[in-house]
Amino acid sequence: MFPLNCWYVIATAEEITPQPLGRTLCAQPVVLFRNTAGEAVALEDYCPHRGLPLSMGRVDGDRLICGYHGLTVDCGGRCVAMPSQSDKITRLRGARAYPLVEQQGYIWLWPGDAEQADPALVPDLHWLSSPDWAFRGGYYHLSCDYRLLIDNLMDLTHETYVHADSIGQPEIDEAEPVLEGDDNEVRLSRVMEGINPPPFWQAALQGGGLAHDVPCDRWQVCRFQPPGQVMIEVGVAHAGTGGPQASLAHRASGVVVDLITPETEHSCHYFWGMARNFCVDDDDLSEQILASQGQIFAEDVDVLNAQHANLQQFSDRRLVTLNTDRGGANARKMLERMMQAEHN
Amino acid sequence: MFPLNCWYVIATAEEITPQPLGRTLCAQPVVLFRNTAGEAVALEDYCPHRGLPLSMGRVDGDRLICGYHGLTVDCGGRCVAMPSQSDKITRLRGARAYPLVEQQGYIWLWPGDAEQADPALVPDLHWLSSPDWAFRGGYYHLSCDYRLLIDNLMDLTHETYVHADSIGQPEIDEAEPVLEGDDNEVRLSRVMEGINPPPFWQAALQGGGLAHDVPCDRWQVCRFQPPGQVMIEVGVAHAGTGGPQASLAHRASGVVVDLITPETEHSCHYFWGMARNFCVDDDDLSEQILASQGQIFAEDVDVLNAQHANLQQFSDRRLVTLNTDRGGANARKMLERMMQAEHN
Amino acid sequence: MFPLNCWYVIATAEEITPQPLGRTLCAQPVVLFRNTAGEAVALEDYCPHRGLPLSMGRVDGDRLICGYHGLTVDCGGRCVAMPSQSDKITRLRGARAYPLVEQQGYIWLWPGDAEQADPALVPDLHWLSSPDWAFRGGYYHLSCDYRLLIDNLMDLTHETYVHADSIGQPEIDEAEPVLEGDDNEVRLSRVMEGINPPPFWQAALQGGGLAHDVPCDRWQVCRFQPPGQVMIEVGVAHAGTGGPQASLAHRASGVVVDLITPETEHSCHYFWGMARNFCVDDDDLSEQILASQGQIFAEDVDVLNAQHANLQQFSDRRLVTLNTDRGGANARKMLERMMQAEHN
Repeated sequence: MFPLNCWYVIATAEEITPQPLGRTLCAQPVVLFRNTAGEAVALEDYCPHRGLPLSMGRVDGDRLICGYHGLTVDCGGRCVAMPSQSDKITRLRGARAYPLVEQQGYIWLWPGDAEQADPALVPDLHWLSSPDWAFRGGYYHLSCDYRLLIDNLMDLTHETYVHADSIGQPEIDEAEPVLEGDDNEVRLSRVMEGINPPPFWQAALQGGGLAHDVPCDRWQVCRFQPPGQVMIEVGVAHAGTGGPQASLAHRASGVVVDLITPETEHSCHYFWGMARNFCVDDDDLSEQILASQGQIFAEDVDVLNAQHANLQQFSDRRLVTLNTDRGGANARKMLERMMQAEHN
Repeated sequence: MFPLNCWYVIATAEEITPQPLGRTLCAQPVVLFRNTAGEAVALEDYCPHRGLPLSMGRVDGDRLICGYHGLTVDCGGRCVAMPSQSDKITRLRGARAYPLVEQQGYIWLWPGDAEQADPALVPDLHWLSSPDWAFRGGYYHLSCDYRLLIDNLMDLTHETYVHADSIGQPEIDEAEPVLEGDDNEVRLSRVMEGINPPPFWQAALQGGGLAHDVPCDRWQVCRFQPPGQVMIEVGVAHAGTGGPQASLAHRASGVVVDLITPETEHSCHYFWGMARNFCVDDDDLSEQILASQGQIFAEDVDVLNAQHANLQQFSDRRLVTLNTDRGGANARKMLERMMQAEHN
Repeated sequence: MFPLNCWYVIATAEEITPQPLGRTLCAQPVVLFRNTAGEAVALEDYCPHRGLPLSMGRVDGDRLICGYHGLTVDCGGRCVAMPSQSDKITRLRGARAYPLVEQQGYIWLWPGDAEQADPALVPDLHWLSSPDWAFRGGYYHLSCDYRLLIDNLMDLTHETYVHADSIGQPEIDEAEPVLEGDDNEVRLSRVMEGINPPPFWQAALQGGGLAHDVPCDRWQVCRFQPPGQVMIEVGVAHAGTGGPQASLAHRASGVVVDLITPETEHSCHYFWGMARNFCVDDDDLSEQILASQGQIFAEDVDVLNAQHANLQQFSDRRLVTLNTDRGGANARKMLERMMQAEHN
């Protein structure tokens, strides 16, 4: 149901402290904590002695001490100490350690074969760390297959129906989707010319001190990269000023950041946010966009949870793929190929 | 577990509006709404596009628009529109439409083979629409096999134990049950002569301006008609004045209306009420009877939910059938024959 | 998962009244009540007629009347009456009656072959009834395999981690456990000499009017007797005064009483308490010890429920048995032998 030999976001950097945190990805319970060097550590959330979640224990420097009988593992998950068991405890099978990369505010974890875990493969999300961009993000837990969320983000015609009051407008449905991509990415683009911007974008233009009640060009470029990243380049510019290439005197634009991680077959983690390169120092605008995006994405949560439950109920049916669904369909094919490669 | 080629009540008429309503019967989720002609419509609650419950969408005239990407179905469940998909969307398999009859305040639905759905087979419950009768009803959801509720209503000896404070009295248990019936009905009757009426019936006599502290004759005629109707003719009359045939100067009587619909194998819908042909214009009395009946039937809900859960626990046991249970037993046989006929 | 031919505690004596009580042990729902002679009675919690839990009925003298249709059973579970069924109801298969012993404040029940139920096998817990001892106890419901609780009590090294603020101290881990036992008991002992007593024991010494800030000897003798009794002789004495044999001028000691009963494979009943033979008339001290023990054991509940859930998650793993776990491991072997004997 999900590929394992790849990087997934499991937490934000600030969630990881010397206090252990339990979280599940790809049906594997993991404990996360930060060691004395400030590095994040990820281990199987299972004490090698009697199976208590290690996340119920406590961190002591660079060691995690189980909260039941004190079995102590180091940052590699090796059993290193336990009262009166000093000589043989080190021979015990330890807790599996997960390859982990902390980068640009997120913790990425590799749930599959550790030998293949190449940190260079962690995607570089430059907007998150560049001073030219402002970023704010949030988290939602969804009770659905993670691929339904990918489908959702790769077909924005849903905005007209799910988000009618904020970012939806009928012109989205009418704009022809352009599907592109290569071995590493599925890309689906849409351009709407000379439209009235919807409320979210009117507020963004206003927030940037630009005229908001004039005809605009609007664009959406959805980029899926496996296993669970969907970056959406979005924006509006005063009509005819160059669209994505317009100067900031005429444009409000950004990147919707979507980092999706399967928790189980029936649930997923959703780290979302928005990066923008206009008015980057305006914290009020940042908070306003965060609140607005949080409200919009909560509407998706309701739809996706209901869709997943209904698909379980109608388990003999197959999803229909129209031309607007081809972005998600191609993303699923890419994931399918990864899973097949893992089983060979 | 339940026959499909028959009519079941799925809602009251007033529940159906242009706002879509989701409800499950016989393990089939259904969406119900009212079109511009005021007609009730029932479709499979599954969007032919991506499986969202159609009940999360909105009705636009005679069409239901899915709340996810705007796929639009007509009252027959046919796909008729979707932005930018106009030419091919009509070729898509639609949502199944259910035969439906609105009659005397209830919506009846046929979950089986639509070809066999004959509106003439919807039972005529004349009390519900006759000006000579007053009717009030309610609804309960039960977490039990619908047949346990039929058993309950076909064996009123439980009144002495479950409803000791309202309609129960030891004489019920002592009265000999008379079992009759034909291919279309199971009928179990009881007559108690010269008894003191229990509190519910004392109140009814009083409500009708009749003496209530005198010896009475009481009767109960339970009539089961498959798949889920139990009509119970009940009443008291001053002793020796003719029982059911007594004049209204000596009688308070009515029909307990029970319309039972399986939701799943482990739950059912229960539409209940009482029709009476005395003091039919007395709304206060109607409300008083409704409240009293609601309280009494809530006692059954507790018992039936507990019985169902206990039968699951003791899954190797068989229900015992005493002579008092023969009404329910014959009802089950009738249902069994219907199910067998459907599988041949 | 549990032996059946043995005595288990199912309730405290004071819980059993003429009001029927439903409780499950070894996956068998049981109804308990007290008859006119004051004797506790235990029957299968299933009405022989239509399966309602008998615990929803009412006791009438020495009979239990079902709350649905009035089927009446006697204290042996035999069907003795039902309105209008008098002649044949006694031929109906009754509700199974369970052998039961009330002793020293607890109700013991034998869920297996009644023929083998020998009251002499009920353990004599003399502390519970002796005037030389004071006893207070409580009850917890746990969502775990009952054997995890036995493991917990047979390996007190967990006190240092789970109960760090009350009875834990590092010296427990360091003291060598001595494993003994025979066919009827597993015994694991620990002695710590010249230690500082932890808060719980300081309070007990103080409560007994003894010096509490002096070096002490501490002991723990965990005695498991199948199927679910763990009695732990615990105490402290001023260092060098004789340990368990010290006079009461230098000693505070008692017996931790643990009576464990499987409810299902995934849950158990835990009747716990503490008996002490010092200051036996000091009710304030009794209440203080009860409150303190209740708080301590609640910490175990959290750990055990989490451990059980995690073992379900990591179902391919086996518990590791270190030397500190040998008490629990031997208890499990004893239970395993009992179960094997039952299947032969």
